[in-house]
Amino acid sequence: MTPSSSAHLPLGDQRSGRFYGKDILTVAQFGREDLEYVFGVAEAMRTMVQHIGTIDLLKGKILANLFYEPSTRTQSSFMAAMQRLGGSVIPISEVRYSSVSKGESLPDTVRTLECYADVIVLRHHEVGAAAQAAEAARKPIINAGDGPGEHPTQALLDLFTIREELGRLDGLTVTMLGDLKFGRTVHSLSRLLSLFGAKLHFVSPEQLRMPAKVTDELTARGISYVEHTSLSAVLPETDVLYVTRVQKERFEDLALYESLKHAFIITPETMKLAKPKMALMHPLPRVGEISTDVDADPRAAYFRQMEYGLYVRMALLAMVLGKA
Amino acid sequence: MTPSSSAHLPLGDQRSGRFYGKDILTVAQFGREDLEYVFGVAEAMRTMVQHIGTIDLLKGKILANLFYEPSTRTQSSFMAAMQRLGGSVIPISEVRYSSVSKGESLPDTVRTLECYADVIVLRHHEVGAAAQAAEAARKPIINAGDGPGEHPTQALLDLFTIREELGRLDGLTVTMLGDLKFGRTVHSLSRLLSLFGAKLHFVSPEQLRMPAKVTDELTARGISYVEHTSLSAVLPETDVLYVTRVQKERFEDLALYESLKHAFIITPETMKLAKPKMALMHPLPRVGEISTDVDADPRAAYFRQMEYGLYVRMALLAMVLGKA
Amino acid sequence: MTPSSSAHLPLGDQRSGRFYGKDILTVAQFGREDLEYVFGVAEAMRTMVQHIGTIDLLKGKILANLFYEPSTRTQSSFMAAMQRLGGSVIPISEVRYSSVSKGESLPDTVRTLECYADVIVLRHHEVGAAAQAAEAARKPIINAGDGPGEHPTQALLDLFTIREELGRLDGLTVTMLGDLKFGRTVHSLSRLLSLFGAKLHFVSPEQLRMPAKVTDELTARGISYVEHTSLSAVLPETDVLYVTRVQKERFEDLALYESLKHAFIITPETMKLAKPKMALMHPLPRVGEISTDVDADPRAAYFRQMEYGLYVRMALLAMVLGKA
Repeated sequence: MTPSSSAHLPLGDQRSGRFYGKDILTVAQFGREDLEYVFGVAEAMRTMVQHIGTIDLLKGKILANLFYEPSTRTQSSFMAAMQRLGGSVIPISEVRYSSVSKGESLPDTVRTLECYADVIVLRHHEVGAAAQAAEAARKPIINAGDGPGEHPTQALLDLFTIREELGRLDGLTVTMLGDLKFGRTVHSLSRLLSLFGAKLHFVSPEQLRMPAKVTDELTARGISYVEHTSLSAVLPETDVLYVTRVQKERFEDLALYESLKHAFIITPETMKLAKPKMALMHPLPRVGEISTDVDADPRAAYFRQMEYGLYVRMALLAMVLGKA
Repeated sequence: MTPSSSAHLPLGDQRSGRFYGKDILTVAQFGREDLEYVFGVAEAMRTMVQHIGTIDLLKGKILANLFYEPSTRTQSSFMAAMQRLGGSVIPISEVRYSSVSKGESLPDTVRTLECYADVIVLRHHEVGAAAQAAEAARKPIINAGDGPGEHPTQALLDLFTIREELGRLDGLTVTMLGDLKFGRTVHSLSRLLSLFGAKLHFVSPEQLRMPAKVTDELTARGISYVEHTSLSAVLPETDVLYVTRVQKERFEDLALYESLKHAFIITPETMKLAKPKMALMHPLPRVGEISTDVDADPRAAYFRQMEYGLYVRMALLAMVLGKA
Repeated sequence: MTPSSSAHLPLGDQRSGRFYGKDILTVAQFGREDLEYVFGVAEAMRTMVQHIGTIDLLKGKILANLFYEPSTRTQSSFMAAMQRLGGSVIPISEVRYSSVSKGESLPDTVRTLECYADVIVLRHHEVGAAAQAAEAARKPIINAGDGPGEHPTQALLDLFTIREELGRLDGLTVTMLGDLKFGRTVHSLSRLLSLFGAKLHFVSPEQLRMPAKVTDELTARGISYVEHTSLSAVLPETDVLYVTRVQKERFEDLALYESLKHAFIITPETMKLAKPKMALMHPLPRVGEISTDVDADPRAAYFRQMEYGLYVRMALLAMVLGKA
């Protein structure tokens, strides 16, 4: 949104708060205090949903859910978040067949949609799309993934999951496993964890190591990390084990994909080496990285992670609309 | 859903009733008493919609409408049912483009969606999908068609239509016409009618006869049925004439399809042979099996059948959410 | 809708008003008084949205948004209009994959949907589709574009935009620019403007002139118009400059399209020749006909035009449902 936006908001609204009218574009905009604020609101949302199910906090507000790329999970999560706050949703996922295929620019699409909606959630295939949309828009934009760029609400929900599962964020040993090269979520989560003095282990095949761009940042912030090619040595001291999918669509060489995809599979056997209190996380969908035999393990947090995502997105929607 | 589900429901909710928390997977789960209960609630929904239009019985509840196969009619009907009860809907119909095409299993998809929604309606192309989903889910699953398997809400709405149109269900003469081999609806309806001592006539081309699996069941229950290749002999004694579409997509040999598709067409001329009080039904869409000249006949019940479907689905949603 | 429809409406509803229960099919059904009435209601909607955001005028009402052709803009606009009035929406845009591809007729689809919804908005690729739907339906049909036929709500929002931007509708000089041959919106707008004694200028390449069918009608109504191939001579006296996109999909000869598409581009330089109080309009999406450098010009009304569209569609929905 642009600074002049408040002049266009309905007069009858009383809005306020730290993120009121703001865009959510990158994890870089969140300091420790901001995160505590977001998580405090998300915690309140959790309590509310578990006791009541729904409130009318955003009754009458409209979310435009603008997805240039499909993502059932993220679309559904934002849609449910808005509906559980009493608001309504305009889902726009057929972008390839519609105005845009007639050659309309992203700024024009966004400026049109903000005539109808109060907030826009944007998923796009190009890095920087969310920032470009925010530049054009008067209303708040929430980045729901801009290609290989960022997906900040995923990183926030990952961190909130750790907080809820382990009761704290400071000084944890966090091990990230799998495709650390292309996995957007582990990059953003690493950055956020650096605010809390985490000790990081990166376990991946040689070809899928954490990029220098991320590790350099960690070094600059004084965060220690160690790279491994095997999980067993670090698992016993791990508080959070974050497993990622080796994404087929990132590989040009499918034979390489096949050889790597099951390099690290978590089984009940694996879990025997882990701490009794640990959070096993995964952004989902999984395609075999975690055996379904593990699902019943109380440390398996990946479905609860989806639920925490709902609360974080409810918090963000309420905040940018000045109702938190 | 699994038995432990109630522990995860919002605490503030008072829920009860025969079907509270249950899945709706097959017509086999419904006895006579269950059907009378469902139809009593559906009847109340009908009265409510006709007098008021909408109530807030399910306000704050969310339905995930998960369609692996498209079906405008069934999707819209469940969506309207939820909205007329004050609830909201997350429509998920782009399944082929989304998470699932990344290889996610049905149980994982369902376990994710139940983090956002209170009930899941599932349409899937594979037999047994609904049961598999129900096994994985804590929240209620409603089967909206699992390939050549079952489509129980269609069978319930068919039976409710007969009840509303003729005022009773016991001892009726019901004639089913058209494609009885592949027509999922006539299989399920036959089973339900067997609970009410119906006399059944099956009229079809030789190639599209009712499968032995269904007729054997009827015989085992002591229900009499007669097979015919022509309608004229049985029409005069028929209370319900249920016409089905000869579905193009079921044929590998398109020439055979063309030769059969208009074997039985209902016209105003046909209706002259029928009882003055009869219900002419069709699950729709029709592609010529019933001439549009018949639409104005008071016995033509197929559009009212759509409306009854709304009431039955409202009843089922309210019931599984403990609000009926 | 058909005359018998009121008998089927919910009994508890008190409905009234000039357009209650009516279809919105063509601009030809609107006289001056009707337009003033629509715009009065749209004006009230504007005030309401700007002060409160949303009301519950249509709470409990359901709109079926039936789009055989995709149109993000129009779909979203109607969806937002219904939601801002407290109603809900059944979006049906996957028509090509669903019942219809099984061969269902438009009247059957409409008669099914009206079992679920209270009003149907229809976009179709064939001229006359909306009239055919209205013939079949008991509930109101709103034409959201029937192929090369009409798109009456676009014409109404265009006229409302002029009224809001310039404060009046009588005796204006209106210049239409671009593709006047295939541009459905300029045809309908010309007809509406003829009710207000407009002076019309038509500026287009030779190949894309306003069709005789439209100009003959204007002549018959005593409306003066002049055709031009250049904008500069008429711009200084223009009150409204209506720019249209040269639509690629209308051309069989793509080379001809490329040679014409940028024949008339509006830049800040162009705007220097225009009146200080003028409305620059465009139905959007644009693909270069108006430079983005012009967006900040106070006369650039095209994004406000989108917003006015919301108010006009809110007005129409409220009116046909007897709540205005």
